Amino acid sequence: MNVERVGTDLQDTLVELTDLAAQAKQLHWNLVGPHFLSLHEQLDGLTGEVRAAADEVAERAVTIGFPPDGRVGTVAKESPLRDVPDGRVPDGRVVALVVDALDTVNERLRRRVDRLGELDAVSQDLLIGVLGGLEKRAWMFRAQLG
Amino acid sequence: MNVERVGTDLQDTLVELTDLAAQAKQLHWNLVGPHFLSLHEQLDGLTGEVRAAADEVAERAVTIGFPPDGRVGTVAKESPLRDVPDGRVPDGRVVALVVDALDTVNERLRRRVDRLGELDAVSQDLLIGVLGGLEKRAWMFRAQLG
Amino acid sequence: MNVERVGTDLQDTLVELTDLAAQAKQLHWNLVGPHFLSLHEQLDGLTGEVRAAADEVAERAVTIGFPPDGRVGTVAKESPLRDVPDGRVPDGRVVALVVDALDTVNERLRRRVDRLGELDAVSQDLLIGVLGGLEKRAWMFRAQLG
Amino acid sequence: MNVERVGTDLQDTLVELTDLAAQAKQLHWNLVGPHFLSLHEQLDGLTGEVRAAADEVAERAVTIGFPPDGRVGTVAKESPLRDVPDGRVPDGRVVALVVDALDTVNERLRRRVDRLGELDAVSQDLLIGVLGGLEKRAWMFRAQLG
Amino acid sequence: MNVERVGTDLQDTLVELTDLAAQAKQLHWNLVGPHFLSLHEQLDGLTGEVRAAADEVAERAVTIGFPPDGRVGTVAKESPLRDVPDGRVPDGRVVALVVDALDTVNERLRRRVDRLGELDAVSQDLLIGVLGGLEKRAWMFRAQLG
Amino acid sequence: MNVERVGTDLQDTLVELTDLAAQAKQLHWNLVGPHFLSLHEQLDGLTGEVRAAADEVAERAVTIGFPPDGRVGTVAKESPLRDVPDGRVPDGRVVALVVDALDTVNERLRRRVDRLGELDAVSQDLLIGVLGGLEKRAWMFRAQLG
Amino acid sequence: MNVERVGTDLQDTLVELTDLAAQAKQLHWNLVGPHFLSLHEQLDGLTGEVRAAADEVAERAVTIGFPPDGRVGTVAKESPLRDVPDGRVPDGRVVALVVDALDTVNERLRRRVDRLGELDAVSQDLLIGVLGGLEKRAWMFRAQLG
Amino acid sequence: MNVERVGTDLQDTLVELTDLAAQAKQLHWNLVGPHFLSLHEQLDGLTGEVRAAADEVAERAVTIGFPPDGRVGTVAKESPLRDVPDGRVPDGRVVALVVDALDTVNERLRRRVDRLGELDAVSQDLLIGVLGGLEKRAWMFRAQLG
Amino acid sequence: MNVERVGTDLQDTLVELTDLAAQAKQLHWNLVGPHFLSLHEQLDGLTGEVRAAADEVAERAVTIGFPPDGRVGTVAKESPLRDVPDGRVPDGRVVALVVDALDTVNERLRRRVDRLGELDAVSQDLLIGVLGGLEKRAWMFRAQLG
Amino acid sequence: MNVERVGTDLQDTLVELTDLAAQAKQLHWNLVGPHFLSLHEQLDGLTGEVRAAADEVAERAVTIGFPPDGRVGTVAKESPLRDVPDGRVPDGRVVALVVDALDTVNERLRRRVDRLGELDAVSQDLLIGVLGGLEKRAWMFRAQLG
Amino acid sequence: MNVERVGTDLQDTLVELTDLAAQAKQLHWNLVGPHFLSLHEQLDGLTGEVRAAADEVAERAVTIGFPPDGRVGTVAKESPLRDVPDGRVPDGRVVALVVDALDTVNERLRRRVDRLGELDAVSQDLLIGVLGGLEKRAWMFRAQLG
Amino acid sequence: MNVERVGTDLQDTLVELTDLAAQAKQLHWNLVGPHFLSLHEQLDGLTGEVRAAADEVAERAVTIGFPPDGRVGTVAKESPLRDVPDGRVPDGRVVALVVDALDTVNERLRRRVDRLGELDAVSQDLLIGVLGGLEKRAWMFRAQLG
Repeated sequence: MNVERVGTDLQDTLVELTDLAAQAKQLHWNLVGPHFLSLHEQLDGLTGEVRAAADEVAERAVTIGFPPDGRVGTVAKESPLRDVPDGRVPDGRVVALVVDALDTVNERLRRRVDRLGELDAVSQDLLIGVLGGLEKRAWMFRAQLG
Repeated sequence: MNVERVGTDLQDTLVELTDLAAQAKQLHWNLVGPHFLSLHEQLDGLTGEVRAAADEVAERAVTIGFPPDGRVGTVAKESPLRDVPDGRVPDGRVVALVVDALDTVNERLRRRVDRLGELDAVSQDLLIGVLGGLEKRAWMFRAQLG
Repeated sequence: MNVERVGTDLQDTLVELTDLAAQAKQLHWNLVGPHFLSLHEQLDGLTGEVRAAADEVAERAVTIGFPPDGRVGTVAKESPLRDVPDGRVPDGRVVALVVDALDTVNERLRRRVDRLGELDAVSQDLLIGVLGGLEKRAWMFRAQLG
Repeated sequence: MNVERVGTDLQDTLVELTDLAAQAKQLHWNLVGPHFLSLHEQLDGLTGEVRAAADEVAERAVTIGFPPDGRVGTVAKESPLRDVPDGRVPDGRVVALVVDALDTVNERLRRRVDRLGELDAVSQDLLIGVLGGLEKRAWMFRAQLG
Repeated sequence: MNVERVGTDLQDTLVELTDLAAQAKQLHWNLVGPHFLSLHEQLDGLTGEVRAAADEVAERAVTIGFPPDGRVGTVAKESPLRDVPDGRVPDGRVVALVVDALDTVNERLRRRVDRLGELDAVSQDLLIGVLGGLEKRAWMFRAQLG
Repeated sequence: MNVERVGTDLQDTLVELTDLAAQAKQLHWNLVGPHFLSLHEQLDGLTGEVRAAADEVAERAVTIGFPPDGRVGTVAKESPLRDVPDGRVPDGRVVALVVDALDTVNERLRRRVDRLGELDAVSQDLLIGVLGGLEKRAWMFRAQLG
Repeated sequence: MNVERVGTDLQDTLVELTDLAAQAKQLHWNLVGPHFLSLHEQLDGLTGEVRAAADEVAERAVTIGFPPDGRVGTVAKESPLRDVPDGRVPDGRVVALVVDALDTVNERLRRRVDRLGELDAVSQDLLIGVLGGLEKRAWMFRAQLG
Repeated sequence: MNVERVGTDLQDTLVELTDLAAQAKQLHWNLVGPHFLSLHEQLDGLTGEVRAAADEVAERAVTIGFPPDGRVGTVAKESPLRDVPDGRVPDGRVVALVVDALDTVNERLRRRVDRLGELDAVSQDLLIGVLGGLEKRAWMFRAQLG
Repeated sequence: MNVERVGTDLQDTLVELTDLAAQAKQLHWNLVGPHFLSLHEQLDGLTGEVRAAADEVAERAVTIGFPPDGRVGTVAKESPLRDVPDGRVPDGRVVALVVDALDTVNERLRRRVDRLGELDAVSQDLLIGVLGGLEKRAWMFRAQLG
Repeated sequence: MNVERVGTDLQDTLVELTDLAAQAKQLHWNLVGPHFLSLHEQLDGLTGEVRAAADEVAERAVTIGFPPDGRVGTVAKESPLRDVPDGRVPDGRVVALVVDALDTVNERLRRRVDRLGELDAVSQDLLIGVLGGLEKRAWMFRAQLG
Repeated sequence: MNVERVGTDLQDTLVELTDLAAQAKQLHWNLVGPHFLSLHEQLDGLTGEVRAAADEVAERAVTIGFPPDGRVGTVAKESPLRDVPDGRVPDGRVVALVVDALDTVNERLRRRVDRLGELDAVSQDLLIGVLGGLEKRAWMFRAQLG
Repeated sequence: MNVERVGTDLQDTLVELTDLAAQAKQLHWNLVGPHFLSLHEQLDGLTGEVRAAADEVAERAVTIGFPPDGRVGTVAKESPLRDVPDGRVPDGRVVALVVDALDTVNERLRRRVDRLGELDAVSQDLLIGVLGGLEKRAWMFRAQLG
């Protein structure tokens, strides 16, 4: 197995998922608007799924011999996600921000899934599972846009 | 209530707890040595407790009208914790790093507990609970140093 | 311990919480509007928390030797809460009514917490817990006002 | 369906059950005597069953288009139950008070069950269930009178 | 017992409930709009209750010696429900469609309940339970229309 | 992603699984013979698995932007499964009917799995899971044929 | 309420259910044949349901003021059920014996349900529930006769 | 193994336990007096333990090739227990009756335990467990006699 | 923090709670009288709560650097509780003994709570929790004295 | 204690139970015939019980200082059980094979139980438990032979 | 039964188990060293098992009419266990101390098991169970000595 | 599908997993050394995962029509794993033995995963899952080597 190439894909995924979980929590706290209640819970569900995925991805990296780096300094520097605003955020804007973040992560995951098929079937299978889950999450946020 | 002063103490606590949770996960993954197994689980338990505490602290901030900021960029910039090394870390070194991080957080928490008594009994009570839990965690890591 | 002073604070709290629980149930049933579903459940959660708090407060009163009075006649006569309307109530109005009731209760609870510190630490600790929970509930209703 | 007649029967039941639950709680707290322990728990069980029944009855009312009214003011004014005394109540007296309250409620429920058969089978079935449960409770209190 | 008459009522109920469950699932998937989240879950709850009721109704039919027919061809041909549209459906329209379907089913159920009283008390009791549950569901959808 | 081609495969799968679930329930009710008991439960297990799979398949379709159609009219018209007989069915015949239906579904699923590899790894992975489960179910019915 | 008439119906039901439970256990132990396994469990399920029903029936009797009598001597003397044979019993014969016992009990229950409607709606509702359950059990044994 | 001797001891135990369970239920229903509540539950616990023991004893008998006989006619004829009175029984009398019945059963069990040691260690071990449980139950009833 | 002063308060609490738990168990075993059943369980609940509190208190001591001493020799020598008698104890006497022991412990806990406020908020909060629980237990025993 | 003699009995039991579990799994997979379903589950239950027993037996051996040997090579060489055939096995033959294997194991266990009484009561008690469980399993397979 | 001889054996066991549980807790708190984590939990498991055994032994004593004495004064005076040191104890020393205490208890238990066979089979069976559990615990501590 | 080629890969996997589970249990029992506790549990977790995987692999084989062979004789003869020593094994040596066994199994699994892609996507997916789990297990043992 090409540890360097597989490991880099896993490390990049870890960075994106860690940032995504932090953004979901940030919006979970600062959300306002008439749809507060269901979005507040939906964002918690998203955080839980993303944190679990991040943990599995990091443990896959160390399993193949590539030490993962999930420190906040690394994540802050390397994440490709657009930042979310500070302070209160209205519910409609929250939905748009989450859809945007999920689209960014999913597009990158899909490219990794394609190239991992020849490198490591286990890592590919893990990322297919993560991608399937996050695409479904994206639908459930996007549907709220009407 | 002095929202600014109470809110600032909660926000600072959120930053420290978020960094602490990320450090615990980082060591959970990259730990090596004969004590791997029990430390690996102990670090997961620490992460869980710290993440739950961070969530309660952030929700207390928003409850009193102070929007919390738990974004990775903010945490990376504001955290007072010494960084943990990247790559593999031997088990004895892991214990020392965690004790050091917990001591830093706990010392700061104790000062906040003292001054919150006159500002907001609810926030003080919350931080007393967090401090009690993390001091106990610190004992259980420190005891391994013999 | 000054049983009369501590007991009176607990008795007053019992009256307010009992009325609050009845109002939450009343709105839980008569609520209408597009946000019916999540508000209906949120009001049930509020009722549950308030009833449990009322029970703990009453049992603290009897524990210190002050017989609590939670009979409907007493509550109807003594409660400081503004009455809620009968018949169907639109969802936006429900949110405003609940925020108003919670603000009334929480302001009175906070004053009691302040004066109980010197009278009975156990009763104070109990009311701090009730206050923290209801302030959080107030945030989660208020946030829906945008 | 005759909404007015069915709804009135449900509303009257709601008032009685709400008062009954408050009385059971009142005695649960202020009970004294050698049989304290088992009666204390038995009264809690009664409260739980009565509150659940009240909720079902109120939701049946709103289901058929009759807005229920469970506010403490309404209940205090409309309830046909004899009031229970304030302050401590010896265990033997508690049993007699509960049996009396249950007999009052059950007698009224039985009359409603009879006339609802021709008006609304669903409401009748609900009240049969409530009546069956409360008659069984009445037996279990009355049996203690020897 | 008149197996033919009771069995026909159960069979007709089975057809309606089977179609209702399929419609609820169809809307559960294709729903869009700002109220997506809570409606999506509410429709799943409806499906679950309706499928369980259909199973009980079919098993009652076979119990009395009338073989039930829940095949898709039979349901498609026999169901009195108005069809739901294909493709995406906005949330407000979804609520109206479900209320309409529930009203159709409930009106027919109520007529069957009336005539089953003299034919088979067990089947009548079963349909009273189904009707009570679906009328409550209808309230919880209708309430969203404001 | 080619939404049309992937979506059509998912839609066809939804139709087949919906019909399969209805057939399993139909036999679950109308089955007779000395092996009634274990087959009755086995068919319920099959229904549960197939309904869950249908739900996942439909949600995958909507996730990729293809509105699924699971209405009974559509299923009745489009399903490739041979119909099951009405009325009572002896246990041996039930086993043969289920094996036949599962073989039809599995053969079609296997062809879709093959062509989805290049179109959408997530959908392929989902159908592999469904296929693996249903092939195992087919073994457990076929084994009863001796 | 006519306690004597209602109580006698409940007492007779208690006798029949107690004997039925004992017969089911007797066959549960002494059953032999290739269908041993599923019948052995099915008989245990029957015993559990019948014992629970007997307990509810007896408690209804005492609730209305009629002391029930479930002593073995009374049951042995009063039960209208045909006795089951001692020693080992082949599985086919077991099914026939259970169907016969259930038919006897159910026929008598149905007559009581008819006459209780005018005497006591609660007792009638209880027996409707018992009858519905046992008729379903009868189907599930009878279906094994093919 | 001497099937006849071991089987006879198991069969006699089955008869006694079956009668004991019926007596416990009989008193569970007809008990009156100020200690009703805790005795009512204690008798239910006794019934549950005795029924489970009877089932294990009967299954041990059939396991060694001795068909057990637990039919009500057999139990009524063979049981050595003194009968309990019909109608209501005051709580103090209930305790005395149960202690008497348990003493009868336990004395006989102890003799069987002694002689089974040389015949079948498995059956002996089973009866030691039953005896230990029932002697403990006897203590918990006898202690109430003061 | 003054480890010596805080630690001594925790150590003294540990001694008292350990003795209290042993006394509760002693009475749990040797209790006799008509109220045996509920007191027997109530004493078990007390033991469980007291043991859990003792464990938390001891772990707080070691957390602050004060090694706790819970050995039986130390407890026997240092405990301020009056001894309970050996042999059987009538239920009324048991209640009086427990109330006396709880009063002794609670009075001492209350004094410690007062002085710990300035020394260590975490230890104070822990003892407030213990005190609140044991004062409630005291009420529930004392109420039996009528 | 004579470690060699006790340990040898435990080691021989471990070998037999390990082979028995493997045979049960082998038949669990390769079974065919109309009784497939219930036998398939029954064999899984047997495997679970036997594996748990083997683990307890091996841990008893190491507890007394006799290192157990459960390696496949040892088991293959030492097991006294007749081998089961490879490939598919009809259900009737499966029952006969399992009864034969259980009889072999049980006969040997019974002899060990007899001689362990004087050597080690703990090991004897463990084997009595294993024997009782497997004799009951043997009954439940043998009963299927009619 | 010779109550005095059996009771004395049970009383002596109670004393030893009570001291053993206190020692295990003492070491659970004061343990230090790199193996802290797993030993800390293992000692908690030991305490739980020993406390449960002490309770069963004491309840067996009172069951046979011998009032047990588990008061700390009695235990401190009568226990044959060597005392454990106060203050912090290194992990290797903890293991040695626990093994020594378990060996003392187990040797005495084994002698009691031998002589109880002729006195009371139930008490013997109870102590066999306790001994088997504690010998297994002893292995799991001793194995750590390498 | 090429049943012979897919089946052979599944059969070879079954042999390896069966031997691996037996080796893990063997070391679970005979392990000694200061790391006994956590390794003892870790080996149990490994056994559980491997046994579950073996069962799934065997059931996949029979599902595709290839009768699996998991008899101990076959496993002993066909397994490619190096044997583990008998008697006690020090903890460091245990870790090395497990890592070696896992490396052997995982290397062979990876080759099978590669070639199954073209033969049977379901079997490939199953083995990817097994491989991913065992590679993670290998990391968690190897990390203890430092």
